[in-house]
Order: sequence, then structure tokens, then C-alpha cells
Amino acid sequence: MSDSLPADSVGLVTPSQLHIDTPLALDCGRTLPQFDLIYETYGTLNAEKSNAVLICHALSGDHHAAGFNSLDDRKPGWWDTAIGPGKAIDTNQFFVVCPNNLGGCKGSTGPNTINSETGKLYGPDFPIVTVADWVKSQAILADSLGIHKWAAVVGGSLGGMQALDWAITLPERVCHALVIAAAPKLSAQNIAFNEVARTAIKSDPEFHEGRYQEFDTVPRQGLGLARMLGHITYLSDEAMGEKFGRELRSGKIQYGYDVEFQIESYLRYQSSSFVERFDANTYLLMTKALDYFDPAKEYDDDLTQAVKAIQAKSLIISFTSDWRFSPLRSLEIVDALLSAGKSVCYAEIEATQGHDAFLMPIPRYMEIFASYMQQVAKEVNS
Amino acid sequence: MSDSLPADSVGLVTPSQLHIDTPLALDCGRTLPQFDLIYETYGTLNAEKSNAVLICHALSGDHHAAGFNSLDDRKPGWWDTAIGPGKAIDTNQFFVVCPNNLGGCKGSTGPNTINSETGKLYGPDFPIVTVADWVKSQAILADSLGIHKWAAVVGGSLGGMQALDWAITLPERVCHALVIAAAPKLSAQNIAFNEVARTAIKSDPEFHEGRYQEFDTVPRQGLGLARMLGHITYLSDEAMGEKFGRELRSGKIQYGYDVEFQIESYLRYQSSSFVERFDANTYLLMTKALDYFDPAKEYDDDLTQAVKAIQAKSLIISFTSDWRFSPLRSLEIVDALLSAGKSVCYAEIEATQGHDAFLMPIPRYMEIFASYMQQVAKEVNS
Repeated sequence: MSDSLPADSVGLVTPSQLHIDTPLALDCGRTLPQFDLIYETYGTLNAEKSNAVLICHALSGDHHAAGFNSLDDRKPGWWDTAIGPGKAIDTNQFFVVCPNNLGGCKGSTGPNTINSETGKLYGPDFPIVTVADWVKSQAILADSLGIHKWAAVVGGSLGGMQALDWAITLPERVCHALVIAAAPKLSAQNIAFNEVARTAIKSDPEFHEGRYQEFDTVPRQGLGLARMLGHITYLSDEAMGEKFGRELRSGKIQYGYDVEFQIESYLRYQSSSFVERFDANTYLLMTKALDYFDPAKEYDDDLTQAVKAIQAKSLIISFTSDWRFSPLRSLEIVDALLSAGKSVCYAEIEATQGHDAFLMPIPRYMEIFASYMQQVAKEVNS
Repeated sequence: MSDSLPADSVGLVTPSQLHIDTPLALDCGRTLPQFDLIYETYGTLNAEKSNAVLICHALSGDHHAAGFNSLDDRKPGWWDTAIGPGKAIDTNQFFVVCPNNLGGCKGSTGPNTINSETGKLYGPDFPIVTVADWVKSQAILADSLGIHKWAAVVGGSLGGMQALDWAITLPERVCHALVIAAAPKLSAQNIAFNEVARTAIKSDPEFHEGRYQEFDTVPRQGLGLARMLGHITYLSDEAMGEKFGRELRSGKIQYGYDVEFQIESYLRYQSSSFVERFDANTYLLMTKALDYFDPAKEYDDDLTQAVKAIQAKSLIISFTSDWRFSPLRSLEIVDALLSAGKSVCYAEIEATQGHDAFLMPIPRYMEIFASYMQQVAKEVNS
């Protein structure tokens, strides 16, 4: 990037770190004796501490949602399209908080941090974490910042599941839940894709049962395969068709196993760049958190009962070409909220980009997102 | 199976083998100096040799389409639902021929047969073969059987592509083409799935650049992964949901990486049984044949021009929940045939089973299939 930061950017940001010494009991039955959460904030918390917005990240996301960590950064945070001065989540109005989740690989306690009880890396010994565990740990972060109630909890995909879980499990602490491109639980097909990704990682001989760091290696092939597969599910058939079609890389058929079509080249590139920045044990944990998410489970599979306690108003957004979590999956949430008599807005956005659309500056999406958040801002200021 | 064979079975069948010493020039520029095709036949060829039906197999299929090879066989051939006395392809009326394709792993010349020029297994040196190459080799098989013109060429999925290619490239030799659950070419998403499957196989350390047999091993993990992924694309989300839902294998969440949901168990089983019966180099070749299939390519991407030479009448069948080759893909073929003024019937079958539906005895599908083939039989006998 150039020396001057874009005017609608939150600018240069530095992550903060929260250390918690109180043990955290997890859904899996194990306890984290202590933990760190790394997080970023944008904007200014008002005196009433009523303008705080929590951003929850998805599978491969982290705490760096907006702005730049250095002037040398080539790209801003992962949701810079939506967060900044004058943007949908307007940092002139809101104090935005985005943590890296427990089990992550960008600084929060996870497989590649030190287990204080052994003095060694957690690696595969890091406990399975759930969406509910994340919500608990994010509530501790909120406490530490003096935020009793979020003006909004916002997330896309797995992030949307966290927003929904916040509204269900800590209803008095959420004014608005924005659940984007999410689902109330994974389908068998969703779980199947995750299982293929996990199998790819675990069967890579460099995985060493998750202790690859002790062997000074990384399960590149397995993690890369998982990412390639992920990309297929993040894009729509249509988006891939528009972007790559059947275009040949060399213009001429080679009749061999080197890259023949542009789409193969794209997948190989995505795969190799991902393994440089992400951790395989974290990938496994994130897919398990997705698989297990099912808030209706303890209500006899009745989602309406599960959302009954919600006090927040909700905005649910889906995208027409998203086949990972299709609009029908969002409508399951909408139907349950309506049946339970809750206040809910729903928007299905015409988009060709598939699941990834939730990260993109699609005009109608950003307009609805921004106008909803302006209402939230009005409530905050009233 | 019991000692008595089902009445509507073609019964016990024995494969035949054709050896061809005439070199076969392939699309890739290489030549097979000689080759074998293994094939099965069911029913009786009439004196006019006008009642022959060619069955083309799909990615993991072979020449054993119907009946039993021994009384100990637990399962009949892969399309036994459609081939037999009184079935859609009625062996009381038709002489049915089904070869294993070149590059296959069930007896026809392919990666795990001996290269006559080196005296060693072909392995990865077996040339890339295309749908057009298969059609050429199947025409040689037809010649050897004295069949000048097929009453019908029939196939599902990659088999349907062969049926379409037969009608296009050897128009005077096909009376009817039955193209089931196919597409006129792969989409970028289809190619992407194939590329993930290939990457899984090739990155398995047991692959040894395709020379695994020399190392007395098999790339089980990679081939198994490819098959798991294949299964996801063969089934619909709905079918997986109906069959497995989110059912837990042990009835209780374990919070670990062993099989948690039934769908995981199913995929692992499918994966491990497939690697016992299929060859990794053949899998690679089959996915490449799929990727390259694109009969409109040499007609400036105009499928109508590509099908102009067709003399056969066609039946095109698709299945509502097939997302690998959706009904829209079949309609591309139908539209081109109609634009070119050809005789075409089209049926979209309501089915929840996804792409795999083409192998299943779905009543409306079998009725349409049978009634079309009865018309074909009438033409043969008229």
C-alpha cells in the first residue's frame, strides 16, 4: 500500500492482549487454567459504554478485522469492507472489538501457544472448543472492557453462529444480533466436507498426530487440500464459472497432470498461500466447532424453543448463490425467531459470489447492513 | 446371494476379451501399439446384428454391468437395476455389450497392465485418454462383433458423455443415444473437485509418482480421500440429510476426532472399501477424461454446431437433486439438439438421491427408460 492510508480506513491498528487467570470450564469437560485473548478495537468507547460492537470471526479469520497493522501491509483486515469511518459498521459511531477465538493461531491461547501446566506447546492436546465456549470467553473480554451489553454482536458464517449463540445464551447482554450467511446447525453434507478436510490433514505423514512442530514440520499437503476444498464451498459454481470458466492456463491442452485449467492454478495458489499463514491443529478445531454447533439440540431439536430467551433484535442476511449455507438455512433461523415472537429483519441478497459474498462490498448488502447499523446507532444515542 | 439367481437377472456371466494389434492413435498424440478390451455381453445378437446396445461406464465403473460373475458374488453388476430380462434394457430383446474402458483397472489395457514395448506395467506412463479415444476403441470392439450400428448407446454421467460423443463423431453408427445425468462439459467447479481429488492422490507419499506398484504399496489415503469427496458430490444434501442427518454414532457427543456423526462413519467405510477395488492411476485418468470432454470446443463453443451431424434420436434424462450435473446441464444438451433440429426426448426425474439417482430403480425413471427402449426394440423388429 502507499504511505497514505485510505480515508475510510480505521488506519494503523495494534492488537491488544487480555490475560485471564480464572479457569475456564469448557463444554468438552476440560478446563483451561488460564488463557489469553488477542483482540483489536476500532473507534472509541463512549462514556456509557453502550456503543460497543463485537465482531466474531469465521473458520480462518482472526482478530485483525479492519485497518492495517503496519504501513507495509499489502492488505487490510478481513472485514475492512464493512468496518471503518462511514462504513456499515461506522467506527465514528461504534467502538468495535474483534478477538481471535480460543483455539486460534494468531495469538489467543490455542494449539500453538504454551500450555502453562506443561511448559510445552499445546499442539493436539488443546481441548476441543465450541461456539458456546467462545461466547463465554468473549463475555470475559467484554467484562474486562467494562462492556455490559453489546450494541450489536455481528458475524458471518461461523461468526454468525457466535452472534446467534450470544443472543441465546446471554440474552441480557446483546441489543442486536447480526447473523450473516450462517445456519442454525451444519447439515450432513457440511459435516462431510469438514470430515474430508480433517482426514486430509490427519493423513498427511507430516501431521505426526498433531505434534508436527516438535518435528519442525507442517502438514502442508493436508492443510492445503483442506483449503482447496474449502474454496470450492466458499465460491458458487456460477462465480467460478465467471472467474475461470474452462480457460486453459497455456491456451492449449497439454494432456498432462500439470495445471491445465486456470481454476486448478487458482486452487493451488490458494492452497500454498494458506499453509503459510494458518495452523493445521487450529483448522481441525474450527471444523469441530462448526460440526458441534446446534443450539436447538438441548431443546429437543426445536429451534423456536432455543431462541425463546432472546431479547435482542436480529438482522439475518443470506446470499442467493451461497450453497454452503443457503438462504433456506437462514430462513430456518428467521422462522424460529418469528415463531418465538422475536423482532427480526431478513434480507436475501442477490449475489453470484457464493458463501464468500458476506465478505464483499455488494451494494445492496452494504446498504442494508449500514442502514440497520444506523438504527442501532440511533438507539445508542437516544 | 442364495443358490438361485433372481428371475430378472441375466444370471451368471463371464467376461470376454478382445485383443487388437492395430495401433490406436490417441488424442494426446501418443499411440497404443496394441490393446485389450475386456467386456461382458448379455442377451443374444440377432441375425441382422441390429439389436445391439452399448453400455458406457462412468468414472469408477467397469465392464461388469449386470448379473453375477460367480454364485458367491454378494452384489450383481453396477447397473443390474436397468439391465436384464424384462428390465429397462431388456436382454430378451437386446444384445447388450459393456466394455471396461481403456485406462481402466479391470482388465482392459491401462496403468496396471503390461506395456508391450517395455515388458513392464504402464503405471503412470499410460497415456491420457479422452472420451473420443474410448469411442474409437469401442467402435473397434463393435467391428469385431460385426455390429455396424448400435440400436442404442447408453450411459450415465461420464458414460452419458460417451453416448453423446458416439452420436456426434460416428453418427451413422448410432440409432439412439441415451444420455443420463450428464453434461456437455465440466464446469469450473466440477474441474475443481477433480483437481482436489488428483492432488489428494498425488500428494500421498505412497503414490511414488504413480509407480506405487514397484514399491509394493498403494496410495490408500489419497485414493480414499478422492472417493470420500466423490461421494459428497454423488449424493444430494437432501439425501445425506435423510440418510444420516446429524445422528451421532455413539448416541452421545465425544468431543474428539474419532467418528462422531454417522456421516463420517459412512465416508470412512466408502473410502476404505474403494481402495481395495480401484486403482489410483486409473482414477487420475478418468478425472482427466472428464475435464477434457468438451465436444463444442472445436465448434467455437457452439454445442448446436457440434451436434449438427447427429443422426440418432436421443433421450436425455436428469435428476432434480443432482448437483454434480444438474438438470440445467442436461438442458444445455437438449437445447442444442432442438436448435439443430434433432429428435430429442427429455425427462427430468424428481429424485432426492442426487447424481447417484441414475443407478437407482426410481419408478418414473425406470418407466420412461423402459418405454423408450421398447420403442427402440419395435424399430429393431420392424
